[in-house]
Amino acid sequence: MSSLRVANFSISIDGYGAGPGQDPENPLGQGGLGLMEWFFHTRAWCNMHGQQGGETGVDNDMAEHGFQNVGAWILGRNMFGPVRGPWPDENWRGWWGEEPPYHTPVFVLTHHSRPSLEMDGGTVFHFVTDGIKSALRQAKAAANGRDVRLGGGVATVRQYLHAGLIDELHLALCPALLGSGENLTAGLDLRALGYECMEHVAGERTMHVILRKRD
Amino acid sequence: MSSLRVANFSISIDGYGAGPGQDPENPLGQGGLGLMEWFFHTRAWCNMHGQQGGETGVDNDMAEHGFQNVGAWILGRNMFGPVRGPWPDENWRGWWGEEPPYHTPVFVLTHHSRPSLEMDGGTVFHFVTDGIKSALRQAKAAANGRDVRLGGGVATVRQYLHAGLIDELHLALCPALLGSGENLTAGLDLRALGYECMEHVAGERTMHVILRKRD
Repeated sequence: MSSLRVANFSISIDGYGAGPGQDPENPLGQGGLGLMEWFFHTRAWCNMHGQQGGETGVDNDMAEHGFQNVGAWILGRNMFGPVRGPWPDENWRGWWGEEPPYHTPVFVLTHHSRPSLEMDGGTVFHFVTDGIKSALRQAKAAANGRDVRLGGGVATVRQYLHAGLIDELHLALCPALLGSGENLTAGLDLRALGYECMEHVAGERTMHVILRKRD
Repeated sequence: MSSLRVANFSISIDGYGAGPGQDPENPLGQGGLGLMEWFFHTRAWCNMHGQQGGETGVDNDMAEHGFQNVGAWILGRNMFGPVRGPWPDENWRGWWGEEPPYHTPVFVLTHHSRPSLEMDGGTVFHFVTDGIKSALRQAKAAANGRDVRLGGGVATVRQYLHAGLIDELHLALCPALLGSGENLTAGLDLRALGYECMEHVAGERTMHVILRKRD
């Protein structure tokens, strides 16, 4: 059955998934790159960016697992780019160049419609203006039995958590302190929403925990 | 130099140091025992309770380190016991029986004065009614050059963090989800207060991180 999964999602010791002061130079905010350090060292990351090398081990296994059996992605608009409000033109084509690392349909949540955008390597960005449930419905149809991966950012994951729509949440608990920014769980009672920590494993640079909804 | 240290302090994935519904049967609240699981397995825990056995390894090393070079403790009143308001009598002598595991002077924060209480094994409880700075001053004098360990609970650690008085904070990031309760860092910007994550190590059942104040 097709699940909605969040994977490789890093949070700081103090619970932030992005630091303060996000801007085009710091998409993850001040200190936010510290959340990605475990991922930058993996072979999975290097492969995604067409490079050789990278480390194998637990962190890499978890990173690679996050990309397996994924038939479609959902992204919040801010993960697609820094442009806010109505699209001034169609020049912004994502952070990732002409061949983004998704290789599937990607459903981008936005309040402003825009034609779909076909990129190299199989990624097609679709812009969804009628809400998170519609995006999930479209993504599940496109995924054709495989899973839908919800890429983020924090506000988008929180919306889907609040609606109880996420089946599995793989978090990387990182040894970084951000102080402020976007907190993943503040004001959300994940136990009341039906989640439990079902698995955990120490990686080389982070601790991985898997939350799933109780039956 | 004598430091004020928090050690072996567990928080959940969602940042809680205690669960909801704390009462005499559940001093750590619902689900709160999940925060102690790593500690219950250590040799340090078994020794504290006069038992043989327990596991050695990273978790145990960290737990034992938390008890080394400690010359005095500070506890919030709720860590000392469930009695609230003025002391009705002197019958409550702590959660730990006649020989508590402190073996040093212990300064208990309270709004209600009470004579000091000498227990077996070197623990003496002193009741401090004039605030957290006074308790720290008295504890440092009593520690005689060794460190002062701040035992908790969450509200007490938050008060000392907010005042910038804690030198080192060893947290155990636990694979438990509590949903609600007492959050350690909510509304506290630990970076702005001068803290950074200086060390981290994966234990058998938890991830240990050490925060210290920048010079």
